Amino acid sequence: MADKKLVEAITSMDEDFAQWYTDVVKKAELIDYTSVKGCMVIKPAGYAIWELIQKQLDERFKETGVQNVYLPMFIPESLLQKEKDHVEGFAPEVAWVTHGGLNPLQERLCVRPTSETLFCDFYKNDIHSYRDLPKVYNQWCSVVRWEKETRPFLRSREFLWQEGHTAHATAKEAEERTIQMLNVYADFCEQVLAMPVIKGRKTDKEKFAGAEATYTIEALMHDGKALQSGTSHNFGDGFAKAFGIQFTDKDNTLKYVHQTSWGMTTRLIGAIIMVHGDNSGLVLPPKVAPVQVCVIPIQQHKEGVLEKAAELKERLAKKGCRVKVDDSDKSPGWKFSEQEMRGIPIRVEIGPKDIAANKCVLARRDNGEKIEVSLDDLEETVMNLLDVIQNDMFERAKKHRDSHTYVAKNMEELENILNEKPGFVKAMWCGDQACEDLIKEKYSATSRCMPFEQEQLSDTCVCCGKPAKKMVYWGRAY
Amino acid sequence: MADKKLVEAITSMDEDFAQWYTDVVKKAELIDYTSVKGCMVIKPAGYAIWELIQKQLDERFKETGVQNVYLPMFIPESLLQKEKDHVEGFAPEVAWVTHGGLNPLQERLCVRPTSETLFCDFYKNDIHSYRDLPKVYNQWCSVVRWEKETRPFLRSREFLWQEGHTAHATAKEAEERTIQMLNVYADFCEQVLAMPVIKGRKTDKEKFAGAEATYTIEALMHDGKALQSGTSHNFGDGFAKAFGIQFTDKDNTLKYVHQTSWGMTTRLIGAIIMVHGDNSGLVLPPKVAPVQVCVIPIQQHKEGVLEKAAELKERLAKKGCRVKVDDSDKSPGWKFSEQEMRGIPIRVEIGPKDIAANKCVLARRDNGEKIEVSLDDLEETVMNLLDVIQNDMFERAKKHRDSHTYVAKNMEELENILNEKPGFVKAMWCGDQACEDLIKEKYSATSRCMPFEQEQLSDTCVCCGKPAKKMVYWGRAY
Repeated sequence: MADKKLVEAITSMDEDFAQWYTDVVKKAELIDYTSVKGCMVIKPAGYAIWELIQKQLDERFKETGVQNVYLPMFIPESLLQKEKDHVEGFAPEVAWVTHGGLNPLQERLCVRPTSETLFCDFYKNDIHSYRDLPKVYNQWCSVVRWEKETRPFLRSREFLWQEGHTAHATAKEAEERTIQMLNVYADFCEQVLAMPVIKGRKTDKEKFAGAEATYTIEALMHDGKALQSGTSHNFGDGFAKAFGIQFTDKDNTLKYVHQTSWGMTTRLIGAIIMVHGDNSGLVLPPKVAPVQVCVIPIQQHKEGVLEKAAELKERLAKKGCRVKVDDSDKSPGWKFSEQEMRGIPIRVEIGPKDIAANKCVLARRDNGEKIEVSLDDLEETVMNLLDVIQNDMFERAKKHRDSHTYVAKNMEELENILNEKPGFVKAMWCGDQACEDLIKEKYSATSRCMPFEQEQLSDTCVCCGKPAKKMVYWGRAY
Repeated sequence: MADKKLVEAITSMDEDFAQWYTDVVKKAELIDYTSVKGCMVIKPAGYAIWELIQKQLDERFKETGVQNVYLPMFIPESLLQKEKDHVEGFAPEVAWVTHGGLNPLQERLCVRPTSETLFCDFYKNDIHSYRDLPKVYNQWCSVVRWEKETRPFLRSREFLWQEGHTAHATAKEAEERTIQMLNVYADFCEQVLAMPVIKGRKTDKEKFAGAEATYTIEALMHDGKALQSGTSHNFGDGFAKAFGIQFTDKDNTLKYVHQTSWGMTTRLIGAIIMVHGDNSGLVLPPKVAPVQVCVIPIQQHKEGVLEKAAELKERLAKKGCRVKVDDSDKSPGWKFSEQEMRGIPIRVEIGPKDIAANKCVLARRDNGEKIEVSLDDLEETVMNLLDVIQNDMFERAKKHRDSHTYVAKNMEELENILNEKPGFVKAMWCGDQACEDLIKEKYSATSRCMPFEQEQLSDTCVCCGKPAKKMVYWGRAY
């Protein structure tokens, strides 16, 4: 029934996944390009997804005691330089403000690429005693990184995110908060975005500039590439020492605080597209779908059809469902295609015959299934179906991920898998960065993480054959 | 009962209003200064107010059909220059990015001081036909204006705001939307912030750079100075012509769109402080108070007191009240002072004697009144009292404003009032900018607006004595 013209507007994902992705973000009206190179407009359909992500993530943060704040978008160069590893990691990719109004600045300012240094500068003045701890602050803002190659949502010069920054009295408490937030991220991805993730620790090579340990959640996209979807860093007392953040503890001695930071970004929208999308466009998990149900009247010129559609909308809206009626003068086929392109989870089809029979058709976006249901208890039927869809989408994504996760015991196996079967590769590692470097150089694959759930696949490193220390997930990544 | 030490920490408002303001923003822990000159940290107590403002304003926007989007924070210089008046107004006060990463940019970018030019660039590509209209978009973001003198919330180099940008098929529809949003702002200020405002139009001298007409809401602070609290601009088709934003109308001819923009900022928090605050600190209207009720246990070491305090908190929270218990080991007097400094609308005092008598004391922050009430129906009593406080705060602010609004018929009267009775001055005006300039030069007072509710105070201009055209509100302003 869906109209072909709109569907033909997007490239098939098997033919060219990258082009399919670009087509979907444009045709589902999530973004537009701008005159500002590497920056995008997030359009209403895209921004509404971000608002739902924000709301649900922010609620989860606040349940753990997080408080929101706002810090300046500018960082004086001298401040950025205080922590050596940090400035080395970020200086090559920041934008510099050199003039304010008509005058050159005495000291140039970078537009924040991340705000560790600003939070440290703030905490240095705000923390005096153990009574001031812990600080568990977060901010929602945009950051800038001067990337050379950009892709909507996945890598752009400016993106939206949240960045949590905490300070604690002990190393133990900092480590616990780092893991707690990683778990919040993982639960959020699985329960809200219907996206299974692997939790683990980054190798030293891949950790955040200035961190003692970086933890990550890694998801597998439909094309078999990995996407780092959220990170949580434990800084130990490194930043505290560089910035002089000390407090008087209960025993009346001066101590350095221990810090963490953790962030998630608009790249999650890219993840949703690449985990759930198909050749008809976007497929949104109900919990982040700005419109969950679209009622499409059939033969809407006939008496009573539009009224019935409006009545169903009212009934569903009352139960907290995000629902709209498409009563435009387009053909039903065109409306079906649009609803599919935009990823709306359920379509309700209602025409004169349905009304006469006291029923309607529910079409599921995630698997194309159509079911005839009674108009009695429609609210319950639809709300239950949204839950079923949310759950099925997770299970489908998990099955895809699991069936695209392989084991390699030596370099030959690793090469074969990476060349022929895109996905995650589990392999043992000796812990030596030389092996990581070699695998990256030869196959453009990186260590995604050392998962919390370790397995002993073999005794030797996949690369050098020396005794193995850790199982690592490897993959090509966005 | 309140502790003197904390109260003494702030200057009396009659002694030095500016210092009182600075003391309150610091001692109520709303902001902190930073190493970035002219920029501030908005701390949890300040940011939570902004979140409540955002939520309630955003709901009002969405009820009128507004959709949220996000546009880049950078504007290429050539884009900023497209509308002549606009660039003249803003170029002297923008921050310029000249380097991205290690390389100089080919074209420098300014950090958005406002986003008319970006929205025009976007609309130019997004609007083709009358079917694409109206566009009623808004974004929540921060903007930068390189101010020389700054004050927390009132004037800072970076501030948070929302900016709405709309495009319409006709001049009439644009004018209607401009007024509609001004009305949304006025209702919000009066109903949510308990702050009465004067609605009116700016003179040509005071209007926004590039606008055909600017409408404003003006509020009176406790010291008699005016604060512009929100503005709504009608651009006509000026920007559309500069940027070439055309659409094919129903009659198949190409037409220019008509545009509006409107904004409110974190300066509203400054307005709340200066309209409602007193010598004990902040006084928050219940609708924007992050904590509405603070339960303070008396003799909390006695058996059952903390349990009862927790029980009352639970009961109130269940009714949707934002409530906390202060069970820290500070003295009750200190806790009272803190609650007063932070502007929490209601304090619940509960001790062993109260519990025995099945009652507690409610202390109102806005007028200091204390009442003994039964613990039965406490929820209803408290929720009703919050409404009463919200209403009383509005009436008190209105009375203050009305009793500080004067009439001047000539320059002598104007001078006397401005020198001796800080407040609004209503006076007639011939419409000639020379008179506005003279009044500003002589008395540092500006035309705040030509109010919608016009009165005929006399027939002649307060300044030149020529026939009067409009009644104007004059005042010294922040």
